[in-house]
Amino acid sequence: MDIKQKIEKANTEAVERMTSGQPVLVDIAPASEVIPGMQGRMITHSGPPIEWKQMCGAQRGAIIAMVIFEGWADNPQDAEKLLERGEIRLEPNHHHQAVGPMAGTISPSLPVFVVENRTFGNRASCRNVEGRQQFGEYSQEAIDALRKWRGVQAPAMRKALQKMGGLDLKPIITKALTMGDELHNRHSAASSLFANSFMMPLAELDLPKSELMPTLGLLVNHDLIFLGLAMACGKAIADPASGVEYSTLVTAMCRNGVEFGIRVSGLGDEWFTAPAPSVDGLYVTGYSEKDAGLDMGDSAITETVGWGGFVIGGAPGILSLVGGTPEEALAYTREMKNITTTTHPVYRMPAFGFEGAPIGIDIRKVVQTGILPIIDTAIAHKDPGYPKIGAGLVRAPLECFKKALIAFSRKYQAN
Amino acid sequence: MDIKQKIEKANTEAVERMTSGQPVLVDIAPASEVIPGMQGRMITHSGPPIEWKQMCGAQRGAIIAMVIFEGWADNPQDAEKLLERGEIRLEPNHHHQAVGPMAGTISPSLPVFVVENRTFGNRASCRNVEGRQQFGEYSQEAIDALRKWRGVQAPAMRKALQKMGGLDLKPIITKALTMGDELHNRHSAASSLFANSFMMPLAELDLPKSELMPTLGLLVNHDLIFLGLAMACGKAIADPASGVEYSTLVTAMCRNGVEFGIRVSGLGDEWFTAPAPSVDGLYVTGYSEKDAGLDMGDSAITETVGWGGFVIGGAPGILSLVGGTPEEALAYTREMKNITTTTHPVYRMPAFGFEGAPIGIDIRKVVQTGILPIIDTAIAHKDPGYPKIGAGLVRAPLECFKKALIAFSRKYQAN
Repeated sequence: MDIKQKIEKANTEAVERMTSGQPVLVDIAPASEVIPGMQGRMITHSGPPIEWKQMCGAQRGAIIAMVIFEGWADNPQDAEKLLERGEIRLEPNHHHQAVGPMAGTISPSLPVFVVENRTFGNRASCRNVEGRQQFGEYSQEAIDALRKWRGVQAPAMRKALQKMGGLDLKPIITKALTMGDELHNRHSAASSLFANSFMMPLAELDLPKSELMPTLGLLVNHDLIFLGLAMACGKAIADPASGVEYSTLVTAMCRNGVEFGIRVSGLGDEWFTAPAPSVDGLYVTGYSEKDAGLDMGDSAITETVGWGGFVIGGAPGILSLVGGTPEEALAYTREMKNITTTTHPVYRMPAFGFEGAPIGIDIRKVVQTGILPIIDTAIAHKDPGYPKIGAGLVRAPLECFKKALIAFSRKYQAN
Repeated sequence: MDIKQKIEKANTEAVERMTSGQPVLVDIAPASEVIPGMQGRMITHSGPPIEWKQMCGAQRGAIIAMVIFEGWADNPQDAEKLLERGEIRLEPNHHHQAVGPMAGTISPSLPVFVVENRTFGNRASCRNVEGRQQFGEYSQEAIDALRKWRGVQAPAMRKALQKMGGLDLKPIITKALTMGDELHNRHSAASSLFANSFMMPLAELDLPKSELMPTLGLLVNHDLIFLGLAMACGKAIADPASGVEYSTLVTAMCRNGVEFGIRVSGLGDEWFTAPAPSVDGLYVTGYSEKDAGLDMGDSAITETVGWGGFVIGGAPGILSLVGGTPEEALAYTREMKNITTTTHPVYRMPAFGFEGAPIGIDIRKVVQTGILPIIDTAIAHKDPGYPKIGAGLVRAPLECFKKALIAFSRKYQAN
């Protein structure tokens, strides 16, 4: 076999590992119980590795909130001092079989969703999406919402999940893709279906009203609750595809608000980074692009496994949030077929005659065509202390893919 | 004003009455409590008026089931005898401010959804969709499901609804149209959202598990529960548009499996009928078009108010059930703009850049263009005793519109 054949074979293997993933929600548990290496005074964050001093405003704000949430400091000033003295260990989620939305912060006592990929036995975790602290807000209210999640909602849902014996997420994902969700920024259907699946098990638990009602309240009113699930699924699906020798498939895309980073199957755990781009989008009243931070979050793991921007043609409802026309959305999905390896056999799009979602980004195709992965995402403020300020579309930077291709050529002596 | 101007003015008035409708679910109650004239041994059915002897197989089967359900007979043979002797009064739902899916049968003790149009104060009822008895099945199992609805599920939901103080259905409809529902044959989103809205009120009732669990079971597993709601909404929205002098707007379309009937605003309660057409569709394994009955049900009230086939372009997920391509579905919706009066200001379709749903069928436009309203619908067996056997697309017959236009010309001396 020549090198080209070896790459094709490796990519077929890697993408088949992705398309054969069977994500099942198996636990909702404190990070310290379920995330490997999550011990002591430690907070994990989104994107490739970054030091406290280099972090963007939103990520710093979110980390300050988690320090207060854990009780390591009482106020933002004291939290900052601890962080400046390096007393809190900061590491990427991706180094701990985890992902997180926007700033992505996970701390030891924060309950996370744990998804097991039944095909390969690996697990991945993601925190719940809540729209405030994860964007850098550290107000009392934002932190109290996390406390309610930790103290009431997550434990109740954990018990209900145990009663179910785990929840298969593949049917929810499959159905949501026929209901206008793209599983990154729009989860209206998946969240509603997810909520419904908890109703009978929750009812059977005989919980006191003080626990039951806030849990029901979260489930039936949280339009984006499934984003945390979709991200854990994405990570659990993508991880088994990494480490395939000769494969040029992208196995992770993430951003920390300063850098955009990708990982490539045949190149293992190495990050290939470029400056994080700015997002082209629509803003919450009172904010504009001059307030916006750069692209941030591990949520591009959804595009990595063929959701989000890759299936936006089937989710025109998202356009009221991110801008653009239905024709543009259809064109994005068609465009992504040029840089992917196959289409998904199960995750299908009715708007394309039930064709499968494009999956398996090939760094060679990205560099050759100049077509960059399209990601639809939220926008955080450039400074610490704010909730979500907008949403929009962004392209992964070409430089990551070029750097990865150079490293690939060096490692495998390809030309 | 010449006659043409009078018609335009009347149609503007009639369609504005439709688009300003505010449907709110106000009760779930036995038909005898809430449907005007529903007293004694009486069963209402779908479509224009028809005698027992002329009824199609599925409608006869469904009526036999209701006679047994009410305890007026113990078995199908005795039920038929009562019906043949004319001891059960049979009248159209539409004559009683009601509608029903497929055979459409409503009997006094059957709980129905009651929707109030808050703009005009009128009410309309529809029965729950269950997929078996309504198609003509009269097995023990099919009738037991109705008994569970009457004895357990409907009373529990009624209490929960009272706790809510009514449920505004407009937000659910608006959202469902952005989630791939067309609100006739596909209600995956609306049903899930509807179920979500009952969860907290149900939890607050402290019902015994024997009542709570079957009710939750119905709500979270019934993909088409919202069809009964959408139909009641359609009737409640369409009724105030009737009786506008000079208006050529269609205010009802319905079928009894033998005849297709329409009503026209300026022509009051008169029915204009033609033979019911056969449905072009896909069949449940084991059945084919030679088993199929003709078009049946009051559910075309959804198309009458601009849903169903009229918005199918935004609901490509339905195509796995009824056949066809996404391009054809988009074309149907565009085509319906040629025979309607306006687009809805609130019910919008993301797949068409958030354009409003085409609403207000004008009999003049239908006859002039030859474009017939497209309806997507279910298929019943031609004989009594079967559940649902398929689903597909059907066109309203031109003859109804021609007859109505002739009657209109006669009444208003128009040419």
